[in-house]
Amino acid sequence: MVKIAIDMMGGDDAPQIVLEAVEKAVNDFKDLEIILFGDKDQCNLNHGRVEVRHCTEEITMEDEPVRAIKRKKDSSMVRMAEAVKSGEADGCVSAGNTGALMSAGLFIVGRISGVSRPALVVTLPTTSGRGFVFMDVGANADAKAEHLLQYAQLGNIYAQKIRGIEQPSVGLLNIGTEAAKGNALTKKAFNLMEEQNDFKFNGNVEAKGLMEDAADVIVTDGYTGNMILKNLEGVAKAFGKMFKETLLSSFKNKMAALVLRKDLQGLTRKMDYAEYGGSVLLGLDGIVVKAHGSSSAKAFYSAIRQAKIAGEQEIVKTMRETVGE
Amino acid sequence: MVKIAIDMMGGDDAPQIVLEAVEKAVNDFKDLEIILFGDKDQCNLNHGRVEVRHCTEEITMEDEPVRAIKRKKDSSMVRMAEAVKSGEADGCVSAGNTGALMSAGLFIVGRISGVSRPALVVTLPTTSGRGFVFMDVGANADAKAEHLLQYAQLGNIYAQKIRGIEQPSVGLLNIGTEAAKGNALTKKAFNLMEEQNDFKFNGNVEAKGLMEDAADVIVTDGYTGNMILKNLEGVAKAFGKMFKETLLSSFKNKMAALVLRKDLQGLTRKMDYAEYGGSVLLGLDGIVVKAHGSSSAKAFYSAIRQAKIAGEQEIVKTMRETVGE
Repeated sequence: MVKIAIDMMGGDDAPQIVLEAVEKAVNDFKDLEIILFGDKDQCNLNHGRVEVRHCTEEITMEDEPVRAIKRKKDSSMVRMAEAVKSGEADGCVSAGNTGALMSAGLFIVGRISGVSRPALVVTLPTTSGRGFVFMDVGANADAKAEHLLQYAQLGNIYAQKIRGIEQPSVGLLNIGTEAAKGNALTKKAFNLMEEQNDFKFNGNVEAKGLMEDAADVIVTDGYTGNMILKNLEGVAKAFGKMFKETLLSSFKNKMAALVLRKDLQGLTRKMDYAEYGGSVLLGLDGIVVKAHGSSSAKAFYSAIRQAKIAGEQEIVKTMRETVGE
Repeated sequence: MVKIAIDMMGGDDAPQIVLEAVEKAVNDFKDLEIILFGDKDQCNLNHGRVEVRHCTEEITMEDEPVRAIKRKKDSSMVRMAEAVKSGEADGCVSAGNTGALMSAGLFIVGRISGVSRPALVVTLPTTSGRGFVFMDVGANADAKAEHLLQYAQLGNIYAQKIRGIEQPSVGLLNIGTEAAKGNALTKKAFNLMEEQNDFKFNGNVEAKGLMEDAADVIVTDGYTGNMILKNLEGVAKAFGKMFKETLLSSFKNKMAALVLRKDLQGLTRKMDYAEYGGSVLLGLDGIVVKAHGSSSAKAFYSAIRQAKIAGEQEIVKTMRETVGE
């Protein structure tokens, strides 16, 4: 049995999509128990393996992260994190304020002793459908080479346990493939990664190869990672918009669009990274999954499943043993 | 009359595309003179305003940049740069080895006194067709906040003179729009840019807004800029590939593709940044334009036109007066 704590109040379409996702998850997985934190009056879900705990507060998107976590003691997010800290729950999922969830992770759940900086990890799609683990996408804007090395160790375990890749290839995001390329940070990180034997280091990976299965795990600092993530989002949106305009620009184009419709939707789905679940703050002494703020019930469901697998696989225990002190 | 020095031997399809582009340029612009540096035997161009100077060497893509510039004294690239240094030519264009061209710029043409780091600038397309000036895309992997400020000053002049924007808006690429966002570098650069009056500072710009006219000039360090540029290339290529596969996946899709063909080509052209010319190493005491290695004659022609406008507008003189000491 795996027990997951869930923030019922976080996200643009909460609590509806959260409740829908929870219902589907407990029906699909007979070994899953849920503790739902939130406003009891807004919860219409009755299920033997779902326990609802009433909270009088909630953290909004406008709340200043650290202050909100420190002051709103009866918020659904704080109480959810406390359930992980106490060991009552194996992991937690929220679609709420990202900064606040990271603060809850750091200050309530806490770091694994020996991990200097937890990193935010996402799984991104590639054209083949294989996808890759990408980190740090914004937990720490500034990083040292030693942090990148630790990200790689954490990402390697994540890819093994969550994605089921026996020996993941780990790449360092850089502006050239040769060892001597990059800025001061990546040059130093390259050397550190070459010297170790904890994971299979594949060398430098360029941003132009990201969608072409360059590596199973790709590591960078939080500034660059966040930049790339937002660039991917922006480009996908811009291309989609221009393409839509082209398809609607004439009658004959509209007819052609009708023919292509289903296949194009399949293409969009393939590139939708919400399908791969949420982002995870790795290096914490517990599982904290961030579902997208605009999550659909399906995306939130993926995030719950992700937390469940992480719990079953005892990913935190492995990280404690491998990276921790 | 504007005189441009051209490297006949650089680029994947040199000298053919270079000669084609030069012929079109001298026919289109009656006030343009060209000095062509390269193997005389490979030049079939006869024109009153084109002078061919024979060179016995050429710099290849495999050459180590700094060494090649120092040793291959009779290469087309070195002699072209010397023509700019001596003042004989107003600017130069090459589609050859990027690193070698940057070295030729730095060691032969030289920096404007007072400019600490020249930056590589490109003009990138936006969905509206307006485009924006983006720098540094890789001249210096590591930058200080003071360098970013100077890039902004140079980029501002470039947008005014080359793109004809009277008062360009200048943005700082960052991972959030608020002043307090970013890494140590961008936080400091933000403050420096806010304090000055040389250009219109538009604040932070996120990577997701790059293609949506977020600013006329967007400034970042060479590591991040190069990363973004390659990511854009990679995503465009990956999307194009997946899309093509969809269009060819069935008979009915192929029929629809035929209908859409012309409009989709228009879309591809709109996003082709070769149309905006080459990249320019700004901050040098002369105009040095890098055309893409895989330039078509049309792209090389755009690069020549760009060098010509830069010469006419006396962009280097303005930079010397504004940024120089």
